Amino acid sequence: MSARLLVVDDIPANVKLLEAKLTQEYYEVITANSGKEAIERAKEESPDVILLDVMMPDMNGFETCRALREDHATAHIPIIMVTALSEKKDRIQGLEAGADDFLTKPVNDMALFARVKSLVRLKVMVDELRLRGQTGIEFGMDNALDKSKIVEARIMVIDDDVVESRKMLEKLANFTQNIFSISEPIDVIDKLIANNIDVVLVSTQMSDFDGLRVCSQIRGNEATRSISIIGVVDEMDTKSIIKGLEIGVNDYITSPVDVNELLARVKTQIKRKRYQDALRTNFRTSVSLAVTDGLTGLYNRRYMDTHLENLMNECVEKDRSMCAMMIDIDHFKMVNDTHGHDVGDEVIKQFAERIGHNMRPADMVVRYGGEEFTVILPGTNLESGALVAERIRQRIANLPFKVNTPDGKLEKTCSIGITTLNRAGGDTPALLIKRADEALLEAKRTGRNKVVALPNLYPKPQK
Amino acid sequence: MSARLLVVDDIPANVKLLEAKLTQEYYEVITANSGKEAIERAKEESPDVILLDVMMPDMNGFETCRALREDHATAHIPIIMVTALSEKKDRIQGLEAGADDFLTKPVNDMALFARVKSLVRLKVMVDELRLRGQTGIEFGMDNALDKSKIVEARIMVIDDDVVESRKMLEKLANFTQNIFSISEPIDVIDKLIANNIDVVLVSTQMSDFDGLRVCSQIRGNEATRSISIIGVVDEMDTKSIIKGLEIGVNDYITSPVDVNELLARVKTQIKRKRYQDALRTNFRTSVSLAVTDGLTGLYNRRYMDTHLENLMNECVEKDRSMCAMMIDIDHFKMVNDTHGHDVGDEVIKQFAERIGHNMRPADMVVRYGGEEFTVILPGTNLESGALVAERIRQRIANLPFKVNTPDGKLEKTCSIGITTLNRAGGDTPALLIKRADEALLEAKRTGRNKVVALPNLYPKPQK
Repeated sequence: MSARLLVVDDIPANVKLLEAKLTQEYYEVITANSGKEAIERAKEESPDVILLDVMMPDMNGFETCRALREDHATAHIPIIMVTALSEKKDRIQGLEAGADDFLTKPVNDMALFARVKSLVRLKVMVDELRLRGQTGIEFGMDNALDKSKIVEARIMVIDDDVVESRKMLEKLANFTQNIFSISEPIDVIDKLIANNIDVVLVSTQMSDFDGLRVCSQIRGNEATRSISIIGVVDEMDTKSIIKGLEIGVNDYITSPVDVNELLARVKTQIKRKRYQDALRTNFRTSVSLAVTDGLTGLYNRRYMDTHLENLMNECVEKDRSMCAMMIDIDHFKMVNDTHGHDVGDEVIKQFAERIGHNMRPADMVVRYGGEEFTVILPGTNLESGALVAERIRQRIANLPFKVNTPDGKLEKTCSIGITTLNRAGGDTPALLIKRADEALLEAKRTGRNKVVALPNLYPKPQK
Repeated sequence: MSARLLVVDDIPANVKLLEAKLTQEYYEVITANSGKEAIERAKEESPDVILLDVMMPDMNGFETCRALREDHATAHIPIIMVTALSEKKDRIQGLEAGADDFLTKPVNDMALFARVKSLVRLKVMVDELRLRGQTGIEFGMDNALDKSKIVEARIMVIDDDVVESRKMLEKLANFTQNIFSISEPIDVIDKLIANNIDVVLVSTQMSDFDGLRVCSQIRGNEATRSISIIGVVDEMDTKSIIKGLEIGVNDYITSPVDVNELLARVKTQIKRKRYQDALRTNFRTSVSLAVTDGLTGLYNRRYMDTHLENLMNECVEKDRSMCAMMIDIDHFKMVNDTHGHDVGDEVIKQFAERIGHNMRPADMVVRYGGEEFTVILPGTNLESGALVAERIRQRIANLPFKVNTPDGKLEKTCSIGITTLNRAGGDTPALLIKRADEALLEAKRTGRNKVVALPNLYPKPQK
């Protein structure tokens, strides 16, 4: 996919050259001539990938990279360092500063495009998950991309070269205990899932197996799709490097492997993986949190508001009856005021459990507010509904709650109002709930610890 | 990226041929020999893209496509129809059955791979957003991919060919009123944003402008990245088609444009766009819903639980004081019991607003539960905090709430407990809240409508 790239170099001719190549490939290119300018432009224009020269006066590429990583607004943008340096220790320094990869000048076009494509794919995905930075802040996870949690990483090496494989395993063992190794890629998917792997190193030089095929299996399976893959590739084998990136390999290292570079690349992948995992978890959690009540695990009012109308329409269409119940714990306030909120919470929780146990899976049980609950019973008429309500009332009144008070228990009762859907038409969720609420008020006014059923007439007849 | 593809054809030789081509490109391929088998395998193996033959005995491709679209488990999987038919009306029938595109036999490899790549990208993105189907169900939006909401679509045509452009606009006008047209792609991004465009049709045959460059600008900008792009391409110009798909064009139509095919393709894109927009909105909403209270808009307890500890640590590190306040509306239960929940809700809302108005941006105001509120005041000592609390108490007691009761107002008071962070160490969020709660209970026991401040000693001294 096309994307916006920031090219940073202090030599204008170098900027021009990269800009021309990338523009030709239909990327949008913005440029900067120094580290300082790069940081400013990155903040203003949020590019998808940054191509960063290493040797620059004032602020070099390593310093610039570190500064970009430290700023919340730019920390997630992939960075490729473009350098004339080819020493391994320079690569490691760059990876440790936060770079995602290196390209050596003169830049090989195919390698450049493959790398950019792969990082754009990553960036676009992360953007979707982070909602341009919102999520992290709301959930207090700004620092998920930092170095704190990478030590418990789970790594698998797939290589039939015993010497190379052992060398990698020994180095990784200094970093984490959770290392797995297979020399034949048999049942790879199962093994990755069973061992809950974060990063897998796959050799593309196995004699009897095609390493790229293994990578494509991993990417082709939903369950393993988000595992980071690092290819272990012969330095001359540009074709495998490019094909690998296209298939979805996240990074590669050339063999014979330099173990320090290996460790730096593995750490980068783990950081990225952890960050994406955290974003996904947040997303999943937030979706379920948004519709459930934290204390009781019941659905909340928001969920009811979304679904009640559908449920009502369905019952009208299928000509089935439906009941709505409002339940309220009598004199609940006294519990909080006398024993404190923790005891009050305990009562609410147990109360919710008892209601839940009396309902069928098709019923919708909702914590409406503090000590009030709503239950929707599709396919139930008023007579049957009232029997259910009466059963709940008895189960509450007859069995004290076990709580942390001096005598270890608390007797409570509840009042219940129940009404039924007016299938003749004109009924709305608000009217239905309002009627159930009026039935509840009637129960409260006339002595509590009782069930009042209100026929579906609205406005209700004058008494 | 690699992915799992389902190839469906009743003639084994055709299956073999496509399987070989796609496997060669490192895709994972599964196969089916009939429509019925295709539906089963699609459900079991959730492929990323389905390549579907049209002419099959028993159940043809159109029927199979419709069945896949109607099943919630497979409705979102992109489908490419592979057909010997080249009649426009067959293409339209296929698009209307829910296909995303057509490939004509014999299949051109480059076109096949470009199309598959583009649809895999779409599928992977949608998968992330739909959490394998969870979100939709929770939020009651199973049917977002249906036809109901596509009529209000906003469409822009970018083409310098006046005749072709007018032909497209006239056809689209039968479908939606929100059509925009420009003959020169100047300030495209601004115009797309200003008109809130869903789908843009971009000609790649303009005389003075490169249409693909326009497409890459749209994709390179975060604000327009999710707009659907349909390329209008010369039929012979396979190069532009493939490059376009690579850049991120969603679909293309060959010119001279068949207006019925145009409409069918536009509708498909709008459906996809609407579905993805709904997923994104759900995601965004759910993140903010998860941490806020629906009635008051204040933060909820979940948010407090996540952030209070950080806030406490920060105050300890910087040696700043911090207060925690628990506020409770006195005899609130009576409001619900006497006037019903809608009046009660109104009081809670206005109460929350009044608290909010008395706080600084750095303070955290939380609806703790029903009629209880927590306020955290970083950088405030107990003495100042108690003054703030007393101000709140007065503002509540002195000004009745305007509500929908016979006399239009309701006088209420509140009780407040306040405590301060013990910076000497050992304090936890639970202990802090517990102390504030004890101060509140003390205020309740000793007459209500008052503020009680509790020193940060714990366990508190015997009285």
